[in-house]
Amino acid sequence: MAGHDNGSVLQFAPFQSSVDEGFWHRLSSLKLNQLGIDESPIFITGFYAPCSHSQVSNHLTLLGESLPPEPSAQSSHLSLRSGNRNRCSVPGILYNTNTLESFQALDKQSLMKAEAKKIWEDIHSGRAEQESSVLSRFLLISFADLKSWKFYYSFAFPALVLDPPAMITSLKPASQCFSLEEADSLTAVCNEWRNSSTTADVPFFLVSIDSNSHATIRHLKDWEVCRSDGYKLLFGFYDPCHLPNNPGWPLRNFIAFICSRWNLQKIRFFCYREHRGFADLGLSLVGEALISVSQEWKLHKHIPKAVGWEVNKGKKTRCITLANSMDPIKLAVSAAELNLKLMRWRALPSLDLHMLSATKCLLLGAGTLGCQVARMLMAWGVRKITLVDSGKVSMSNPLRQSLYTLEDCLNGGEYKALAAVKSLKQIFPAVEADGIVMAIPMPGHPVPSQDEHDVLEDCRRLQDLIDSHDAVFLLTDTRESRWLPTLLSSNANKITITAALGFDSFLVMRHGAGPLVDYRSESMSALSAELGNFSLADRDKRPRLGCYFCSDVVAPIDSTSNRTLDQQCTVTRPGLAPIASALAVELLVGILHHPHRIFAKAEFANSMDNGSTEQPLGILPHQIRGSLSQFSQMTLVGHSSSSCTACCSIVVNEFHNRKMDFVLEAINHPTYLEDLTGLTELKEAANSFDLDWDNDIDDDDECVEI
Amino acid sequence: MAGHDNGSVLQFAPFQSSVDEGFWHRLSSLKLNQLGIDESPIFITGFYAPCSHSQVSNHLTLLGESLPPEPSAQSSHLSLRSGNRNRCSVPGILYNTNTLESFQALDKQSLMKAEAKKIWEDIHSGRAEQESSVLSRFLLISFADLKSWKFYYSFAFPALVLDPPAMITSLKPASQCFSLEEADSLTAVCNEWRNSSTTADVPFFLVSIDSNSHATIRHLKDWEVCRSDGYKLLFGFYDPCHLPNNPGWPLRNFIAFICSRWNLQKIRFFCYREHRGFADLGLSLVGEALISVSQEWKLHKHIPKAVGWEVNKGKKTRCITLANSMDPIKLAVSAAELNLKLMRWRALPSLDLHMLSATKCLLLGAGTLGCQVARMLMAWGVRKITLVDSGKVSMSNPLRQSLYTLEDCLNGGEYKALAAVKSLKQIFPAVEADGIVMAIPMPGHPVPSQDEHDVLEDCRRLQDLIDSHDAVFLLTDTRESRWLPTLLSSNANKITITAALGFDSFLVMRHGAGPLVDYRSESMSALSAELGNFSLADRDKRPRLGCYFCSDVVAPIDSTSNRTLDQQCTVTRPGLAPIASALAVELLVGILHHPHRIFAKAEFANSMDNGSTEQPLGILPHQIRGSLSQFSQMTLVGHSSSSCTACCSIVVNEFHNRKMDFVLEAINHPTYLEDLTGLTELKEAANSFDLDWDNDIDDDDECVEI
Ligand SMILES: [Zn+2]
Ligand SMILES: [Zn+2]
Repeated sequence: MAGHDNGSVLQFAPFQSSVDEGFWHRLSSLKLNQLGIDESPIFITGFYAPCSHSQVSNHLTLLGESLPPEPSAQSSHLSLRSGNRNRCSVPGILYNTNTLESFQALDKQSLMKAEAKKIWEDIHSGRAEQESSVLSRFLLISFADLKSWKFYYSFAFPALVLDPPAMITSLKPASQCFSLEEADSLTAVCNEWRNSSTTADVPFFLVSIDSNSHATIRHLKDWEVCRSDGYKLLFGFYDPCHLPNNPGWPLRNFIAFICSRWNLQKIRFFCYREHRGFADLGLSLVGEALISVSQEWKLHKHIPKAVGWEVNKGKKTRCITLANSMDPIKLAVSAAELNLKLMRWRALPSLDLHMLSATKCLLLGAGTLGCQVARMLMAWGVRKITLVDSGKVSMSNPLRQSLYTLEDCLNGGEYKALAAVKSLKQIFPAVEADGIVMAIPMPGHPVPSQDEHDVLEDCRRLQDLIDSHDAVFLLTDTRESRWLPTLLSSNANKITITAALGFDSFLVMRHGAGPLVDYRSESMSALSAELGNFSLADRDKRPRLGCYFCSDVVAPIDSTSNRTLDQQCTVTRPGLAPIASALAVELLVGILHHPHRIFAKAEFANSMDNGSTEQPLGILPHQIRGSLSQFSQMTLVGHSSSSCTACCSIVVNEFHNRKMDFVLEAINHPTYLEDLTGLTELKEAANSFDLDWDNDIDDDDECVEI
Repeated sequence: MAGHDNGSVLQFAPFQSSVDEGFWHRLSSLKLNQLGIDESPIFITGFYAPCSHSQVSNHLTLLGESLPPEPSAQSSHLSLRSGNRNRCSVPGILYNTNTLESFQALDKQSLMKAEAKKIWEDIHSGRAEQESSVLSRFLLISFADLKSWKFYYSFAFPALVLDPPAMITSLKPASQCFSLEEADSLTAVCNEWRNSSTTADVPFFLVSIDSNSHATIRHLKDWEVCRSDGYKLLFGFYDPCHLPNNPGWPLRNFIAFICSRWNLQKIRFFCYREHRGFADLGLSLVGEALISVSQEWKLHKHIPKAVGWEVNKGKKTRCITLANSMDPIKLAVSAAELNLKLMRWRALPSLDLHMLSATKCLLLGAGTLGCQVARMLMAWGVRKITLVDSGKVSMSNPLRQSLYTLEDCLNGGEYKALAAVKSLKQIFPAVEADGIVMAIPMPGHPVPSQDEHDVLEDCRRLQDLIDSHDAVFLLTDTRESRWLPTLLSSNANKITITAALGFDSFLVMRHGAGPLVDYRSESMSALSAELGNFSLADRDKRPRLGCYFCSDVVAPIDSTSNRTLDQQCTVTRPGLAPIASALAVELLVGILHHPHRIFAKAEFANSMDNGSTEQPLGILPHQIRGSLSQFSQMTLVGHSSSSCTACCSIVVNEFHNRKMDFVLEAINHPTYLEDLTGLTELKEAANSFDLDWDNDIDDDDECVEI
């Protein structure tokens, strides 16, 4: 528009922000993985470029790269940043708060003032002359609600306010301000400037056009050369604005700079704009402004007022939610991680979430205990869970077995191991859960010879499972089904935890290390030195912690055959299983975080003995017994028995030497284990059935259904 | 078939059984409601009738009525039984075992022998002559697997074996054995016998045909009359068999009776059969048999051998499953009841399942605690559950909040109260669960005047909810949200249980009775006399148990506004919530079974004090505090404070008098409660926001979604 000669106040088009989704993701990850609850301001970088479309202004854009790089991605990140013509850097600062309330309570005026001060000082120190990008700065305040993936934020583009304001005397398309030769030359040098990687992202510059219509672009630091040699002198800047009657926001601080630094009162400015990546003098503007600030304004120590909070749809605070656009699985994973990281930040700095997520847990039994243990493991961040159970979900299960619903009971019932896995994935889809439909072979349950092959297959499979996992939970509801896994765990020296329920009392315990651990091996020597006070040569005199069977005086033989109706159903007070399951998992987490892990000695509640080994998670007991009728709980220790049928060195050695032959003998001969270990109390032989009566129960498959 | 003159062994067609589904349902209900684990034999009644179709034998049928009646249904049951021509009674005995193993282990031979002895003795005592139906007996052995609704069973129809066996000399259709006149007369008297309610179900009888071709039917006891007067004498019985060449099974014991009791060696028997309900001599058979048993056989003390185990498809044991034909909801209900009844039978005879199922529980909060408490309540048989929560399910919830899955988090999340109800119904469809989306008004969270109406509505609604339930659980995650419900419960004198979590410790407690209970009222006088040792006139000196706020020194004011990221998420060790929830529910069950309920005094673990009040469920503490880091748990007591902001008589009286005006004052004035109760510590006034900054956060609805 021609003619502002009578002078009106120069009006600038505000900067607009645009935040890429990647910025919020990167911020979330930074918050979760590096910052925690640290609220220190973060230096970030915004990007902008000259307007390149006659209808659309360019925005100041934040990308993932706007935030500090991941430690691992440093180099590639740097290369992205320099000399990109479409990404002229703008230095910014981010105040990300931990709560919405503190976001709202931020003192916006002081924050703005602080940024204004930086600009003011860069002007006066001469830094802005050397590095013109610091003349544009921005301020971002935000609250990242990582639970719901909502981000509240406000932008400010601090602009020093001239007092009195600059008056405009002329503002025209640049094409109307130059001769054809001048225009051609200006276009050429602008394109050259924009295409050189050393200048492409330098947003403030000086343009001089000599009497030969020859245009030159120089850095601000070349001011002295420029002022003397130029016929026409223009203060150029990359203008993000597309409007024909307003220069864009960066000009504000540029004028403040010019007036403060070079003390000019009348200037010509050049709003550089492009069309499809090339200088376009039809879109670019040239204007003339008069500046006459008060003397006070020019004093270094006086920091001018600054304005520039972005307003969007009439509001300063914006909110964006990413939840709906994100992959629900990723959201679930990050939400789960957030919860655990919060626990680490706040209460357990030594919590090793990576270790937990990599620990492979084997759950034998997917009943009341198994369901709850699996849930608790997931809540602690364990991601690799294998469940073994041969049963199907029956109608009475869902009320106590927390992974099943009525639907799993229909049409004869889903296999528990499979239904449990399905349910775990519905709770947390990133879990690596596996369900194995398999019965656990039991000693004292003789096997007909035609079934021998299958039972031995199961034994081997169980051994493979135990060998390939890091921790084993014994959660079945019979004693004898715990025997083989106890033996195999003891042989493999695996962390093993037993939970067992009575009617109103429970036992949760960790098994001690196996008897065959070679304390002389290299990896063990440091530990054994530390454990110290026992003879390595005499293994069974070493105070190993006991297993579930260590306090037994009889071998585990068939206890299921004659259970009555009430014994078959697990008759326990409903409160027991959740308590025992929770304690079992807490115990595992304790073991995994203990420096001696499976070798850790037994600790007791409130005993004096804990001082030396105190762990952030608390004490690491051997056994926990609790009673619901007394609302009481106590910690106990039981050492290994040299005649234990599952973990003594005789038994484990015998297994080690004879492998499955040994197991088969134990399964088929009720007294074999007792004979072997010298236990003298013998059980009565199982009652044999009346031979006149053929034991011809129909199989399930042949059942009549009416 | 004509001519057996040369004599061949008389062969009988075995009885066949048919069990109606109603029989198994009635047996299940009997087992669950009356028998429990009692394995005593049960007298049952089978029904049969003469064969009435040329192609199909009649079966011995068991119906629901075959079993002893429900106590309430006695009279109608009796009327069903007598004189029904299609239901001739056969006395039977049922051995229903508690396990499949004991079913298999039953001594079938002795059971058969015992039945044979009954028949033999009824023959010799003359009872069979008076009451012929005892000549047929049956034996049923079964195992009812009420978990899977599978029934294993075997039938026996004990028949005394003649030694040597009876020889047959002739067997023909009855129509070939009589003159037309004789046949007409026989048909007429048979129909008359069958149509009279006094004889219709008498299955053994005597037929005599005089020289005038006139047939007469008499009871067995009329033998003497019959033998003297008859020209033709036939031993008649209702024959269930349709085969043209074999009499049915009941004839066996009839022959044994005739030969033992009347000492005959040659007999004519009449297999009475019908067609469409009328005597049919073409289907009926007449046969002649020779009997010559050893002398030993006739001795009373010698009990003959008996045979008669039913064989079906080559097997003696049959299995039927009803699960698939049953309504899954009914199945779920009966499975749930079975589990609880088993607990009562075995361990807790005083467990009042009816009371539990009728107890209405109000759960304030449907988060980690609320989900688990609801599950535990259902497991204990509580059927009426109302959940109150204003929140939506977020991504981090399913891992710890056991009623939700990932699906509930999508699209912004389901309301927790509603998702929880949906989930409870999937677990147990018969639960009467209600979800209420409502925030609990909190003291110290001032309400803008335009919202006052809504907040007061919520207060009144909460009061209605508390008044209409029997027990209240406080399971929210802020202190101040527990204040109003505590006050309302205290005012209504409702059982109230609080569960609260720290990082690795928890508190579970029951609130004491409210201060306004009128101990002088009639219903209270007995109790207060029993509680005895305190002055009724001086209420606040009475040792009421405290509430959650009783040990506070500050009133519950706004604790949420400045919670940081980590405080917003509930940062607790995952094991805590299941433990605290389980204990909270066990505590409720204890209170409900205590004779003094809300007034029960505090008991302690393993204290000497428990002797006098020992309950089957164990002690009833006031507070349980537990620590995961110590794996410890202890019981405590805290008495009510006379300056408690939630339950002291000043506060409750004030509420009683001023109702919602009082609540509003407490909500709007952070110090009001402290002023009222005389608590001196005052909280700092909440920080006011920077007034220059408009607090213009977007609502959720206006959030940008990308
Ligand atoms: Zn052992
Ligand atoms: Zn109180």
